[in-house]
Amino acid sequence: MITLEALLRALDLGGTFVFAISGAVAAVNRRADLFGILVLAFVAGNFGGISRDLVIGAVPPAAMSDWRYLLVSIVAGLTTFFLYAGIERLRIPVLIFDAVGLAFFAVAGAQKAIQFGMSPVMSALLGMLTGIGGGMVRDVLLNDIPQVLRSDLYAVAALAASCSVVIGHTLGFPYEASALVGGALCLFLRFMAIGYGWRLPVANLSAHKRTRARKPGEGR
Amino acid sequence: MITLEALLRALDLGGTFVFAISGAVAAVNRRADLFGILVLAFVAGNFGGISRDLVIGAVPPAAMSDWRYLLVSIVAGLTTFFLYAGIERLRIPVLIFDAVGLAFFAVAGAQKAIQFGMSPVMSALLGMLTGIGGGMVRDVLLNDIPQVLRSDLYAVAALAASCSVVIGHTLGFPYEASALVGGALCLFLRFMAIGYGWRLPVANLSAHKRTRARKPGEGR
Amino acid sequence: MITLEALLRALDLGGTFVFAISGAVAAVNRRADLFGILVLAFVAGNFGGISRDLVIGAVPPAAMSDWRYLLVSIVAGLTTFFLYAGIERLRIPVLIFDAVGLAFFAVAGAQKAIQFGMSPVMSALLGMLTGIGGGMVRDVLLNDIPQVLRSDLYAVAALAASCSVVIGHTLGFPYEASALVGGALCLFLRFMAIGYGWRLPVANLSAHKRTRARKPGEGR
Repeated sequence: MITLEALLRALDLGGTFVFAISGAVAAVNRRADLFGILVLAFVAGNFGGISRDLVIGAVPPAAMSDWRYLLVSIVAGLTTFFLYAGIERLRIPVLIFDAVGLAFFAVAGAQKAIQFGMSPVMSALLGMLTGIGGGMVRDVLLNDIPQVLRSDLYAVAALAASCSVVIGHTLGFPYEASALVGGALCLFLRFMAIGYGWRLPVANLSAHKRTRARKPGEGR
Repeated sequence: MITLEALLRALDLGGTFVFAISGAVAAVNRRADLFGILVLAFVAGNFGGISRDLVIGAVPPAAMSDWRYLLVSIVAGLTTFFLYAGIERLRIPVLIFDAVGLAFFAVAGAQKAIQFGMSPVMSALLGMLTGIGGGMVRDVLLNDIPQVLRSDLYAVAALAASCSVVIGHTLGFPYEASALVGGALCLFLRFMAIGYGWRLPVANLSAHKRTRARKPGEGR
Repeated sequence: MITLEALLRALDLGGTFVFAISGAVAAVNRRADLFGILVLAFVAGNFGGISRDLVIGAVPPAAMSDWRYLLVSIVAGLTTFFLYAGIERLRIPVLIFDAVGLAFFAVAGAQKAIQFGMSPVMSALLGMLTGIGGGMVRDVLLNDIPQVLRSDLYAVAALAASCSVVIGHTLGFPYEASALVGGALCLFLRFMAIGYGWRLPVANLSAHKRTRARKPGEGR
């Protein structure tokens, strides 16, 4: 008999592993040393959850007080380090795992926010933050503009998953059911984005061709 | 009859709106999609306040527990998305609103820090952090060096506003009065920086022409 | 008679000063104005400790509630501003001070985490975070990939120091002894890295010459 708590933890650890792989691969591509790879693995796998926990007041964050998050991140980093060529060749499986990790995180993050008494809207946003936070910091540390800001329905898929959990909770459905629906929705959106190029619109800039309009003197 | 609490909240929401616009405009300029624009709007409008709240122990942060901050940020992001050309043409009004937002945030941030028992010096700094934090993270996410680090008396104006509130509080003046003085001081400094090029000094590098002196091997 | 608390505080303030210098020097090299220099000095000197304190629930962080951290950072920033040429010429002393600061921070950070009831493994990691956090944010703000991710046994040296403290604590040794051993280990590793080029391995990329393998469409 699996308890709700155990299920949440398993989802969270699974997501951590997959995202840690994404951080480690990015670090290898930028020629980080072994330690940098482990740091990026830990950050990509755990920063979303840590920032969620800080905001909802769950201190110390689970990723700090439960050694399994650390262990999973280190295993992911070492795996990437020793099997890098293999992982890089497996581009499609990595994309699939990444989508699964996103679904795990968004679902588990929303549920944890609900448990800590956050409002429905904020629980949905915190679920999304759990899903995308690690990847954002990974990109910032590697000096990229976070991919999530401009591509692929990534954050929208996370938001769809966390919204399902929140709506299900509000309507009194069992968590397992709404988590399943939310996770499936997230996977569907990611696969349509990857396979068929579904995108969000960008603002119409055609009237003025400026790509970097901020000038010195515009302040802040 | 306006209470102090209502006044504080109104200042905070006004500042959030203006700064959210600045984040959304920056995101559009970097070709972020609709979601990226909304994220940047929320971050630019709320990160300063969120980091202040985390540091003073006001958990969950107001921007997370009060849905109006989210609503204001989304409205700002959508407005920018649909009216971008219009907003860009209105460069001067945006600069004015930005200065007003900075004054709002610095004043409200300092007052909140005082209410949470921070020391006068730290309250002044936290007021400044509230004013400049959102813009710093906006620039970091878009892969720029934060403008505030090298231009325009921006942070100094925020610090002047928050110092006024703290000094007024220490001397026992009513909050409304010191907030008004601080806000006016902030606006004055920003307008002198924009209109007349007032600047802080930079260190004298003429003796050695290096712009990026850190070399591999120097470590941290 | 020096108490443990006073010793911890002195180590922390010493580390803050040295790291604040490193932040100020980096800011000057990027042509930040006086204010930007002070901000970078404060961030580089205190962000590691602030993030540790947020994570372990020591709110408000010591760097915010104790004015001496601020004072030390400002003195470091002003010193750098006025004596920049001198400081730059003293490259070796700065490297030495930086290594000493790292040892201070890692040792003091691990001890504080232990005092707040963190597990041994997490205390060691938080000691390391205290040591490397300020430098990471300094580099991110200046739009660099953090040096610590790819060079010089920097983080490993910090980890060695914090592990010594944690192991000593677990075995019941007096704090002063294990702090001394940890600090010496940290200095030894840094000097071997600087003087003899000790490095961690990087992953073998020879089979595929890609340095930036992430492509649009790979998502997060």
